[in-house]
Amino acid sequence: MSHGFKTVAIVGVGLIGGSFALAIRKAGFKGRIIGVSSPATIRKALELGVIDDSLPLADAASQADLIYLAQPIQQIIATLGSIDAHVRPGTLITDAGSTKAAISKAASVIKRGRFVGGHPMAGKESRGVEGADADLFRDCPYVLTAREPLFEAMIERIGARLVLLSAEEHDRLIALASHLPQMLSTALGSVLTDNPAALQVAGPGAVDMTRLALSSYDIWRDIIATNRESIDAALVACIERLQQVRAQLAEPAMEQAFARGAEAARALRKG
Amino acid sequence: MSHGFKTVAIVGVGLIGGSFALAIRKAGFKGRIIGVSSPATIRKALELGVIDDSLPLADAASQADLIYLAQPIQQIIATLGSIDAHVRPGTLITDAGSTKAAISKAASVIKRGRFVGGHPMAGKESRGVEGADADLFRDCPYVLTAREPLFEAMIERIGARLVLLSAEEHDRLIALASHLPQMLSTALGSVLTDNPAALQVAGPGAVDMTRLALSSYDIWRDIIATNRESIDAALVACIERLQQVRAQLAEPAMEQAFARGAEAARALRKG
Repeated sequence: MSHGFKTVAIVGVGLIGGSFALAIRKAGFKGRIIGVSSPATIRKALELGVIDDSLPLADAASQADLIYLAQPIQQIIATLGSIDAHVRPGTLITDAGSTKAAISKAASVIKRGRFVGGHPMAGKESRGVEGADADLFRDCPYVLTAREPLFEAMIERIGARLVLLSAEEHDRLIALASHLPQMLSTALGSVLTDNPAALQVAGPGAVDMTRLALSSYDIWRDIIATNRESIDAALVACIERLQQVRAQLAEPAMEQAFARGAEAARALRKG
Repeated sequence: MSHGFKTVAIVGVGLIGGSFALAIRKAGFKGRIIGVSSPATIRKALELGVIDDSLPLADAASQADLIYLAQPIQQIIATLGSIDAHVRPGTLITDAGSTKAAISKAASVIKRGRFVGGHPMAGKESRGVEGADADLFRDCPYVLTAREPLFEAMIERIGARLVLLSAEEHDRLIALASHLPQMLSTALGSVLTDNPAALQVAGPGAVDMTRLALSSYDIWRDIIATNRESIDAALVACIERLQQVRAQLAEPAMEQAFARGAEAARALRKG
């Protein structure tokens, strides 16, 4: 099966970059996969058969026809600032960063290559290439900020669900669907930390609702820094809703509040 | 193995009542288990071997030495108002209601029998006796509002973790550990319902965080009605925390907020 690309460079061979490599291989990609990462990560990625070989960024960029940036957001932005000089004309550069407007802005300097922003809505608790999984993207949304037929075909082959959104719309929606849940989980965890006696009566609900609170701030620092306004707007909307809940605690309207909450919950499970 | 009790009446043979019957049987209880429930439920419970037979409440109460009330909260309160006339002196009456102060108050009329409030922190999505599971209580907290050695031994034999709390302290803590997570999930679901475009970029985090939003309001109506003040206080604490998160979005202090949130999340997983 031809994937249209012959040489893929994965920059940042962690959970996402490593999983993308395994996923395209499983989907029939026969070309070469070059890893660009720290020596320790490259050693593990080679051992695990995730990549074929490794090169410094400039060399990988000059040989690849698809460059997949799977680093933390600020490193993606830094890479975009230097990579264009090394790529062959027409090379496709894409990324897997969790916010898109700041990255798209940084990508405006790409002239020899062409850039399309991406965000696979996939993940799991474990980080690093050790957790890489060929099926990580299966049935998950994968946002692209522009049409790119060859890469869209690749996304479909790895089993992800393509969603086309502008960078700005992505950031607004992801603040509601991903960043707000994170902040609620962190806030709940923090309230429980202040009330440790409550932990002794915590059941499965509290465990579920604090799973995201385990997320590493290393990742969230960049997300927050590059999507502050939308996260704040999502928090304002949710705080307003919680104030409504408070006002309705004794009212029959509470039943409608539960019904509205269940509506999205059910829609998410129909997916 | 003697469990100290010879005849157990389960009033309300749903998920919790049915699971309690299966759990004590699995733990070696050799006595009789009488179910008190609607005809349809009794038929299913007999088919599934959850109970040995069925009687009207007054007859079951007069024959049992342990009466386990596993109805919705308001029905438990109603049952407590009428049952005492039927029990033999010294019969232990306990319940599995999700709030304890209102039930304890209603139990003050118990004079022939003796009452101890209980709350097993267990559950699952499915309701009804069809979901009954002998291991439902395993490793879950089980609150009692007073010491009751024979029943404490039973709780330990079914694998639950005994927690002794006054009814008031239970209600305050459970508002933080259980009712607040429910309200956050419902509020998040409701915000997402108002922003349906966000659903297309929702990942596993949003799915987890809206699971509780699927809860039936039929159960929550009574919980809210009998624990309004503590739920409101928990909501106030969490809204305050979310306002802090908003203020810290651009600050280094956000890292501490994440650390505080993760602390309780990790503690819940050590359990």
